[in-house]
Amino acid sequence: MGLVVKKFGGTSVGTTERIQAVAEQVKASREAGDDVVVVVSAMSGETNRLVELAESIHPNPPAREVDVLLSTGEQVTIALLTMALEQIDCPARCYTGAQVRILTDSSFSRARILDIDAEPLQEDLQRGRVVVVAGFQGVDEEGALTTLGRGGSDTTAVALAAALEASECQIYTDVDGVYTTDPRVVPEARRLDRITVDEMLELSSLGSKVLQIRAVEFAGKYRVPLRVLSSFEEGPGTLITYEEEGMEEPLISGIAFNRDEAKISVIGVPDTPGIAAKILGAVAEANIEVDMIIQNISQQGLTDFTFTVHKRDYQATLDLVRDNAEQLGAREVYGDDKIVKLSLVGVGMRSHAGVANTMFRALSNEGINIQMISTSEIKISVVVEEKYLELGVRALHKAFELDVQPVAELEGLSDE
Amino acid sequence: MGLVVKKFGGTSVGTTERIQAVAEQVKASREAGDDVVVVVSAMSGETNRLVELAESIHPNPPAREVDVLLSTGEQVTIALLTMALEQIDCPARCYTGAQVRILTDSSFSRARILDIDAEPLQEDLQRGRVVVVAGFQGVDEEGALTTLGRGGSDTTAVALAAALEASECQIYTDVDGVYTTDPRVVPEARRLDRITVDEMLELSSLGSKVLQIRAVEFAGKYRVPLRVLSSFEEGPGTLITYEEEGMEEPLISGIAFNRDEAKISVIGVPDTPGIAAKILGAVAEANIEVDMIIQNISQQGLTDFTFTVHKRDYQATLDLVRDNAEQLGAREVYGDDKIVKLSLVGVGMRSHAGVANTMFRALSNEGINIQMISTSEIKISVVVEEKYLELGVRALHKAFELDVQPVAELEGLSDE
Repeated sequence: MGLVVKKFGGTSVGTTERIQAVAEQVKASREAGDDVVVVVSAMSGETNRLVELAESIHPNPPAREVDVLLSTGEQVTIALLTMALEQIDCPARCYTGAQVRILTDSSFSRARILDIDAEPLQEDLQRGRVVVVAGFQGVDEEGALTTLGRGGSDTTAVALAAALEASECQIYTDVDGVYTTDPRVVPEARRLDRITVDEMLELSSLGSKVLQIRAVEFAGKYRVPLRVLSSFEEGPGTLITYEEEGMEEPLISGIAFNRDEAKISVIGVPDTPGIAAKILGAVAEANIEVDMIIQNISQQGLTDFTFTVHKRDYQATLDLVRDNAEQLGAREVYGDDKIVKLSLVGVGMRSHAGVANTMFRALSNEGINIQMISTSEIKISVVVEEKYLELGVRALHKAFELDVQPVAELEGLSDE
Repeated sequence: MGLVVKKFGGTSVGTTERIQAVAEQVKASREAGDDVVVVVSAMSGETNRLVELAESIHPNPPAREVDVLLSTGEQVTIALLTMALEQIDCPARCYTGAQVRILTDSSFSRARILDIDAEPLQEDLQRGRVVVVAGFQGVDEEGALTTLGRGGSDTTAVALAAALEASECQIYTDVDGVYTTDPRVVPEARRLDRITVDEMLELSSLGSKVLQIRAVEFAGKYRVPLRVLSSFEEGPGTLITYEEEGMEEPLISGIAFNRDEAKISVIGVPDTPGIAAKILGAVAEANIEVDMIIQNISQQGLTDFTFTVHKRDYQATLDLVRDNAEQLGAREVYGDDKIVKLSLVGVGMRSHAGVANTMFRALSNEGINIQMISTSEIKISVVVEEKYLELGVRALHKAFELDVQPVAELEGLSDE
């Protein structure tokens, strides 16, 4: 297939036995004719161990030194994996992020990749070596070590695949692909053979935490073919595609849900210009992220305003808005943290009317009341009472026949 | 005092509490007006943990990857120590060997330092920061990580002190200085306030393992004032001096001993040119290091040849020489691993006759038979039966009055 970048997370390299299993898998790819670059995370548990060491010394350890500390985690893994490869006669060479060099900005603990020098890696590949690279880490212009934040190894893999113009970037995880919804909620949930990057982004941000959202964005930007697959069992996984490939898209790809939100309603505020900014300004200043925002139409010069925040920010937000209620001229402020957000995702819905209608009818048939609605090009989200999570997801999964392989997708597969 | 380089070994930074204690000590030096560069080793136990990980994957792990793996040990320590310093409001910045950059050759696991770029460290020092550097590690010209071998942190500290023209390089250990001999053998053993670098070299190589011999050589070459002191209790330690300082040297500085040697004798070989090379050639080819070598005068064209090797090489060497005995024309080959080497060290003996005589008489008075003698400019070594170790060391310590502070040394001290 050419050059493949494979990324293995902490669980996949959690023990020396697992590292040896990864080495075997990499060797098999080499023997099948691929050039292979492997990106690895720290062995599972290692990052937490290091964080605990730091916190036993400093209650709020400085980010620059935390990055020096944490980047040892992947450095251990690259050394061990390279030894495991050499042990089975698969020539390999390993590199830290700084060695590659993966140039980042200087935002310690959440740095962004600016550039990658792929030259030395190309040389190793030409000599028939497997290249093993430490994920999650880089170096800034002044030579300081940086890390990309949790899950940053996915981003490293995608960035390397882009820089090396790899034919595929394979992210090995503990699931065997992206599903139409969480199989623990809907046993009929089906693994998708393909999904578009836009859908993947919506699914990631909505709580299907298969891939880091930054990695998916990165992959989209550089058109890196991305595949999610299991490091524990064989299988094709799910390929993340780009739209210009022109296959007919299924109507709906999946259903995401998010239990982590709470809603705040500001009732009966004067519908004057700038009222939304007034309400949300204080929230933004407190560094609280707002997800859905809904403002109903005005009645008698008054309007209702509702938004959602993460559950952990619920009480702080409620207190904040209540403190401002008088100044805002609001009649009432109330909140509810017993809610859940259900989202239908699919690029196909752009060209198909009636998706929203089918969704609302399916929920209504189950007696589920919709509290909030928000839509985007390829997504419809609704907020319902928390207790309806499973019922709602199952009803939608059935209504859109997600348990059945769509004809278009089957045709798409036969092209391969 | 100016700029001081302080080196703390694995035991001194073995726990987070110990790291915090080191931070306090460094801060105190800063507050006393010194600029401070700190060199640290991996936390005790960490290097062994990493080596075990490697060996569970590869029976004979490749040196290049071992260096990538082991160099994470000090990287953890520099991050934690810098956090500890910042926590007590002592501004600090940390650097790995590669970041400094400590340029070495490419002999993985036993690299030699070629060059140090002290520029960036100077900048930090000028800004009032403590600089924390990972010991034991460097980077080669191609950017590969290297390590200097066990104890290499001492060498890092001395090399940094030379590059920064530090006023002193202080090596913190678990002993409070260099003693006239091992206090466990002679309770009257006295801590030396000063010792010359040559004496220190002899004492190091003879088994007083206070400092790494390479570090001492390095210090001698660059005339770096080196001080050995305890990281657990206060005290002046021992200053390692250079001869041109011109103080009158005490006759004898100390008595070293080595229990790790064994001797091999080749009896009755023809005393022809090249016989020594023939005997030792095979030993050298087997990568066995020889320490003392003695050849007695020839009698009737035959000579006896004796040499010592490390005890772990004893059986292999004996087998090797026995296999060659016929070819060498030797009458007999025999070995003895129940021996010990006692050495008297002191630059003063160069200008004083009678030292050897006093030594031999002291041993003879105790009924100790001398099996081998070997001398250098500042050292006399004898091999005696193993059981005489303690008796011999105590007899020599007393004969040379090492328990008494010499007058010259007291005067030297009063100059400070």
